[in-house]
Amino acid sequence: MEAKKDYESLVERLEEIAHLSSVIGILHWDQEVIMPAGGADSRARQMSALAGVLHEKETDSRLGELIERLHGLGPADFTPVEWCNIREVKRAYDEEKRVPKELVREMADLRSRGHGVWVRARENNRFEEFSPVLEKWVRLKTRWAEAAYPHLPPYDALIDHYERGMTMASLTPMFERMKTRLVRLIRRVREQDEPPDSSFLQGNFPVNVQEQLGRRISADLGFSFAEGRIDVSVHPFCGGGDPTDVRITTRYRTDNFIESLYAVIHETGHGLYEQGRMKEERHRPASESLSMGIHESQSLFWERMIAQNRYFSSHYLKTFQETFPESFAGVSADRLYRAINQVQPGFIRVEADEVTYPLHVILRYELEKGLFDGSVAVADLPGVWKEKMGEYLGIQPPTDTLGVLQDVHWSGGDFGYFPSYTLGALYACQFYQALKKELPGLENDIAEGNFSRIKGWLNQKIHRQGKLFSPEDLVERVTGRPPDEEGFVRYLEEKYSDLYSLRQG
Amino acid sequence: MEAKKDYESLVERLEEIAHLSSVIGILHWDQEVIMPAGGADSRARQMSALAGVLHEKETDSRLGELIERLHGLGPADFTPVEWCNIREVKRAYDEEKRVPKELVREMADLRSRGHGVWVRARENNRFEEFSPVLEKWVRLKTRWAEAAYPHLPPYDALIDHYERGMTMASLTPMFERMKTRLVRLIRRVREQDEPPDSSFLQGNFPVNVQEQLGRRISADLGFSFAEGRIDVSVHPFCGGGDPTDVRITTRYRTDNFIESLYAVIHETGHGLYEQGRMKEERHRPASESLSMGIHESQSLFWERMIAQNRYFSSHYLKTFQETFPESFAGVSADRLYRAINQVQPGFIRVEADEVTYPLHVILRYELEKGLFDGSVAVADLPGVWKEKMGEYLGIQPPTDTLGVLQDVHWSGGDFGYFPSYTLGALYACQFYQALKKELPGLENDIAEGNFSRIKGWLNQKIHRQGKLFSPEDLVERVTGRPPDEEGFVRYLEEKYSDLYSLRQG
Repeated sequence: MEAKKDYESLVERLEEIAHLSSVIGILHWDQEVIMPAGGADSRARQMSALAGVLHEKETDSRLGELIERLHGLGPADFTPVEWCNIREVKRAYDEEKRVPKELVREMADLRSRGHGVWVRARENNRFEEFSPVLEKWVRLKTRWAEAAYPHLPPYDALIDHYERGMTMASLTPMFERMKTRLVRLIRRVREQDEPPDSSFLQGNFPVNVQEQLGRRISADLGFSFAEGRIDVSVHPFCGGGDPTDVRITTRYRTDNFIESLYAVIHETGHGLYEQGRMKEERHRPASESLSMGIHESQSLFWERMIAQNRYFSSHYLKTFQETFPESFAGVSADRLYRAINQVQPGFIRVEADEVTYPLHVILRYELEKGLFDGSVAVADLPGVWKEKMGEYLGIQPPTDTLGVLQDVHWSGGDFGYFPSYTLGALYACQFYQALKKELPGLENDIAEGNFSRIKGWLNQKIHRQGKLFSPEDLVERVTGRPPDEEGFVRYLEEKYSDLYSLRQG
Repeated sequence: MEAKKDYESLVERLEEIAHLSSVIGILHWDQEVIMPAGGADSRARQMSALAGVLHEKETDSRLGELIERLHGLGPADFTPVEWCNIREVKRAYDEEKRVPKELVREMADLRSRGHGVWVRARENNRFEEFSPVLEKWVRLKTRWAEAAYPHLPPYDALIDHYERGMTMASLTPMFERMKTRLVRLIRRVREQDEPPDSSFLQGNFPVNVQEQLGRRISADLGFSFAEGRIDVSVHPFCGGGDPTDVRITTRYRTDNFIESLYAVIHETGHGLYEQGRMKEERHRPASESLSMGIHESQSLFWERMIAQNRYFSSHYLKTFQETFPESFAGVSADRLYRAINQVQPGFIRVEADEVTYPLHVILRYELEKGLFDGSVAVADLPGVWKEKMGEYLGIQPPTDTLGVLQDVHWSGGDFGYFPSYTLGALYACQFYQALKKELPGLENDIAEGNFSRIKGWLNQKIHRQGKLFSPEDLVERVTGRPPDEEGFVRYLEEKYSDLYSLRQG
């Protein structure tokens, strides 16, 4: 009886916190999409006022007492979902309590200052201007990790923040094996002298026509426009305030529509995850997305496993031909498929294809690991970066702007985030392979543009599972085995051996 | 020393409250302009969570202690602006403390329920479905008034909420005199059988062209798009979150561009007020807009005194001709001026022209006054409405949907609001007449499309004065005399006698 009342009080507090957090989501979307430039200062103050309120609510001692009482009862008295809510809020509450306020303030200051420093350093190709920020971040994040998760090595604590349960002990050997095979695959692709013809993907594609096409395909995949929107921002993202108000963005170039369309598909994957969360628990932690890696698996599932798939090309060729008749006259589905699956080592991670992308991530992982175990000094980063780029991708960036300064993440102290991208790709592939076994006729569905069974499967197996399991356990429950890179690497080897007519080797 | 510290603490709290309130402004705008339909439930929860937080902050006993200490020192220790902040927050704090929480909850419930009841009653022309809501509102608002401002008659307390210092004792004689003269003026206009030719205002006006025109004219008037936007919503409004982020809206019909353009001009007037607020005090009460009536005076100043003025027509005729050559071929400035200044008694307040509008307001004022002094029963409203419409405007609505059910205000208990519309019109006219004396060549500025001196004058005389004075005092400071209806009525009589070639009478 008492427990039931306590649980209801807990839920009331959690929902209030969720509503206030979702307001921050709307404000952030608004800032990127809508807000006039002059509103920046006032927006920063609004955000900071709301963050302050949220912090008060999240660290309220009466919340702490409720959590202690409920957690003390143990899981037997609760449903798995209820227990998940209790467990998750306890974790967040305890973490917040363990980290000194003064450190939180120092990090917030460095975050806002660091971004500006990074922007200028990147513009001017001056790594030395950014390195003091990096030095400080490594010190602050080490202190944070030691305070929040003292039983973990600092870099494990940082990884764990994005991908709970993942450690260097798991990642390092996985990334090592991946690296060896992908470096070899890329070398073989590069030895092939005949790149696929993608000239027809350059042309003149009016923005309003691209917009319509993007909306149509997003709706085909299952995105609900009654509970979401697509707009324009400088960098595509998926945001918004609630599973019933999911806002994805893209950007348009009139000379290329594939980039924008695939950004829409990618963000649609994130959006479907959000729209697919369990309804009853919508404003409680148990329903929230599980991890960065699992979120990324959903965007990459649709972008790569579905939309870079041969059957997708064969289905949408006709649509593309009707939409852009000049560019697509005489183009076959096979030519389209080859054109959207080119492998081309480049300097910039966000422009990388699915074969070279993991090496961008592994490089950053190795550097971050080195920064936190002391084996790499901040000052060495530019040199090590270039060296590794040469070793992994066979190219060396001519400037730090095109190298170590390219990503925003480190300016905000987001170490441990990069591995999620490649874990996401790996999960996506493993999910697709499981789905293929479970759903006879999967490829036929794609070829017919019928995505409802696919979306339904993801809804049920992943989206509605919320935070009930760890990422690793979820992958195992869905696919029958824990995450491993072998299937992913073999998928890449087979797909690109075929695409590039590589001899067995 | 102590006072200085207290004042700084007060300001910190006031600014936090302002930031959180401005978030509500953004969410409201988003709801009307952007939000997908499915987000409605979650938005209501976000709003309610934020309102709860605001209420906590606004009634915090530590805020109360600060206010008491500072207010106890008296105005001598502070600048007028500082004292204004103290006085304003004290008034709001005391009011909030005097009103029982349970009454606040009852009103919030009735507000959300009442809206739906009103929507259906209006749709179905069934006043009897709405009357229980009205009965209850009169009871609750009477209780509110007795609790919040026990020394005032209840309806005076309600008026005071929108137009501080205004009372029935001032309004009734003013409205009586206005009514007599306007009813006579309208009768004379109606006896004229030759309405101006406005047929060229009907046509085909593409939305994107209208959009460009509206933006251009809004910018001409001085609206800053670096600190504002124009978008589309069902009902035009001016909202947003901050003087640096002012968001006005309009709606478009392709068969008529004047309606949309004049909505843009009207909302631009509200927007200029917000953008023109004093910068230093931006997030404190002293800088906020003074009253509903003064706000409306700013929108009506631009819509009626400027944009329905002969010189405005003469300046923009060429623009209209270039923008819509088919419709405007052969139209003279005089014909345009006559077409946008038609007098036409109608059932609907929001569609009324400047001559008939005050009678819509006076009718509502008389009914509201009667509801609160017991001389009018809710059940009598439909009949009295029709009777008064016949008496004032010479027409009787065939249904309650076109009569007593047309406005949203009463469904939310917003009694006392309507007078602000006509006070705004009166202030606007009085401001214009003062400006004309102070600024030689005013009409020439308008004829040349040069609005910067006009905007500068409003910025200095009104926008930057914030809440320093009462509405009545502000009008007197700006124009040399307290608000009175004589100048306004004479302006209407002269303008429309000329327009309709009425004989002196």
